[in-house]
Amino acid sequence: MGVVVTLDEGHSDPEASLTDLVRLVAAGMERVNATILSRTGSDVAMIPEVANHLIASGGKRLRPILTLACADLCGYGAENREADGAVKLAAAVEFMHTATLLHDDVVDESDMRRGRVAARIKWGNEASVLVGDFLLGQAFRMMVEVGSLRALDILSAAATVIAEGEVMQLTAAKNIETSEDEYLAVIRGKTAELFAAACEVGPVLAGRPDAEQTACRAYGMNLGIAFQLIDDVLDYGGTSAALGKNVGDDFREGKITLPIVLALRRGTDEERAFWRRTLEREDLEEGDLQQALAILRRHRALDDTIERARHYGDQARAALDPFPNGPMKIALLQVVDFCIARAH
Amino acid sequence: MGVVVTLDEGHSDPEASLTDLVRLVAAGMERVNATILSRTGSDVAMIPEVANHLIASGGKRLRPILTLACADLCGYGAENREADGAVKLAAAVEFMHTATLLHDDVVDESDMRRGRVAARIKWGNEASVLVGDFLLGQAFRMMVEVGSLRALDILSAAATVIAEGEVMQLTAAKNIETSEDEYLAVIRGKTAELFAAACEVGPVLAGRPDAEQTACRAYGMNLGIAFQLIDDVLDYGGTSAALGKNVGDDFREGKITLPIVLALRRGTDEERAFWRRTLEREDLEEGDLQQALAILRRHRALDDTIERARHYGDQARAALDPFPNGPMKIALLQVVDFCIARAH
Repeated sequence: MGVVVTLDEGHSDPEASLTDLVRLVAAGMERVNATILSRTGSDVAMIPEVANHLIASGGKRLRPILTLACADLCGYGAENREADGAVKLAAAVEFMHTATLLHDDVVDESDMRRGRVAARIKWGNEASVLVGDFLLGQAFRMMVEVGSLRALDILSAAATVIAEGEVMQLTAAKNIETSEDEYLAVIRGKTAELFAAACEVGPVLAGRPDAEQTACRAYGMNLGIAFQLIDDVLDYGGTSAALGKNVGDDFREGKITLPIVLALRRGTDEERAFWRRTLEREDLEEGDLQQALAILRRHRALDDTIERARHYGDQARAALDPFPNGPMKIALLQVVDFCIARAH
Repeated sequence: MGVVVTLDEGHSDPEASLTDLVRLVAAGMERVNATILSRTGSDVAMIPEVANHLIASGGKRLRPILTLACADLCGYGAENREADGAVKLAAAVEFMHTATLLHDDVVDESDMRRGRVAARIKWGNEASVLVGDFLLGQAFRMMVEVGSLRALDILSAAATVIAEGEVMQLTAAKNIETSEDEYLAVIRGKTAELFAAACEVGPVLAGRPDAEQTACRAYGMNLGIAFQLIDDVLDYGGTSAALGKNVGDDFREGKITLPIVLALRRGTDEERAFWRRTLEREDLEEGDLQQALAILRRHRALDDTIERARHYGDQARAALDPFPNGPMKIALLQVVDFCIARAH
C-alpha cells in the first residue's frame, strides 16, 4: 500500500526536508556522536587528531541517521535491552564512511574535503591511509560487540563492494567510452552500497522478517544512487547559474560522471574531441570548465541526470510501501526530497 | 613442564627449521591457498591482478601456517565438522597481512616488495589502497562465515592495533630520540600483534580454555617481536660481511629501528650528528650506508639486536610449556630457530 505525502521538491531550503528525521533520531544521534568521539580515542595522538579533523568538520551524518531511523521504523526502540546495538552499528557505519573518505583523498589526490584542507595535505598520505585503516578496524570491533552475525555479514560484504566500486571507478576514469550502465555499477558500489547496508541492519537488529530487510535495503540503495547522481550534478554547480566553490573538481580530476556520459552520447565529433583532451588526457586550458558547462547545458545533461535521480528517488519511496504510515516513515520519505532538492 | 629439543641455531639453511611445520600443515595450507585464490576473485579485473601480483610472489605464509598449527596443537583437526574454520581464518590472516603490505608500500613510498616491483609502481597508489581495502573486507567476510564472535573480536582488535603501531612508527620515524621501549611498542603493534592473533584464534576455534589461548597468544607475540628484530638486522645485511640486495632500505627511508636505537645510545656526538643528517634530514651522501654499517658494527648494535631477538625467542618457546610434547609442538619450537637463524 502506498502512502500519500505532500512533497515539496521545489523547496527553497533542502535542509528543511531533513529536519523531521533529525529531530526524531536526535536522542540516538547524541549517543552515536559520543560513541564516535570515544572510539577515535587512542594513545597514539595522531589518530584522534586526524580522525577528528574530518569527523568534526561536519557532514550531515546521513548514513548513521538512516541506521537509527530504519531500526526505529522496524520497532527496535529504547525499550530494547540491547538498544546500544543500533547506536554502535550507526557509529560503525560512519567510521566506514570516514575511512572511505580518507582513502579517497589519497586516491583522488584531493587537496580539500568538506571545505577544509584534506587530512593528507596536513598530515600526509601515510596518515590518511593508516587512520582510515584504524577506523575500519574500530568499525568492525563495534559490530563484533553488537554480536549480530547477520549485521556483520551485511557490513563486511559492503566493505568489499565499496572497494570494488572504487576500483571500477579507477578503471572507468578517463575512459570516455564508459556507458550509463557501467557508471551506475560504479556508484552502486562506491556510494549506494553503504546507504543500503546502513538501512538494512536496522530491521536485522529488530529481528524483523526478510521482507522488511529487503525493503529497507532497497530504500537505501535507491536513495544512495539518487544522492550520488545529485552530487555529480552539484559538482558542475547544480542547475543554478551561479557557480559555488569547488565546482569542477570532478572535471579537473578527469572523472566520467553521468552528466558527461549523457552529453557524450548526444555530442558532436568536435565535443568528443574536447572531452578526450580534457578528461582523458587531462590537458586543461583556461576556459575549459565554462566550455564543459556550456556543452552539458546544450544537451540538458544536468537536468536529465536530476531526472534519473528522481526516478531512483521514486523507487526509494516505493520501497517503504510495506511499512505502515507514521512519523518515521514520513520523515524517511522526506529524506528523498532532501537528497534531490540539493540540486536546485 | 619444559621440553628439551635439540636446537641448531647456527643452521646453515634457516629454511630447514621450517620444514617440519610446513610438512605438518601441508594439507591445510593447500586448502588455504585455494581459498586465497578464490577470494581474490572479482568481476573487477584489476583486483585479482593486483592482489595476485603480491600474493603469488611468494612469501612463506608464516602467519596462516601458525593459525593452522595452533589450531591443530589444540586438537582442532580434520574430524571437526567445521574444520573449514581454521582454513578460512588462516586465509583471513594472510589477507590482513597482504592488505597491510599494500598500504605500507604507499606509506613508505616503496618501489620494490618481495623482489618484485611494488604494486603501487605498476598500478598506482590508488590501486594499492583500494585493493588493500578489498582484501580487508574479504578477510572480515571469511571471519563472519566462520561464525566465532571471539575470533572476530581478536582479529578486528588486531586490525586496529596494527594501524596504531604503523601510525606510531610514522611519529617515531626520523626522531633519533626514540627509546628502545617506544620502538618495541611500535613493533608489537605493526608486526607482533598479527602473529599473536593468528596463533590465538587456533585454541579459540578448538574451544580450548583461556589458559591455552593466552599461551598461544604469548607464543605468537614473542615470536613476532623476534621476527621483526631479525628483519631489522637483515635490512643492514645481517651479520655476514657480504651485502645482499635491498640492504639499507630502512636507512634510506629514515626508519629508526632497534640497531639504530642501540648505536645512538652508545654513540659519540659526531655519530649523533651523522644520524641526524642521514635519518632525520634524509640528507644522504655517497658512502653513508657504509658509514652507518661501520658505526653499527663498532657498537655491536646488530649482534645485540639479535641477542634481544633470542630473548623474545626464548619467551616464545617457554609460552608453549603448557602443551604436551608432540610433533606439532616441536615444529612450533623450531620456527623460533628459523626466525632467528635468518640473521646469519
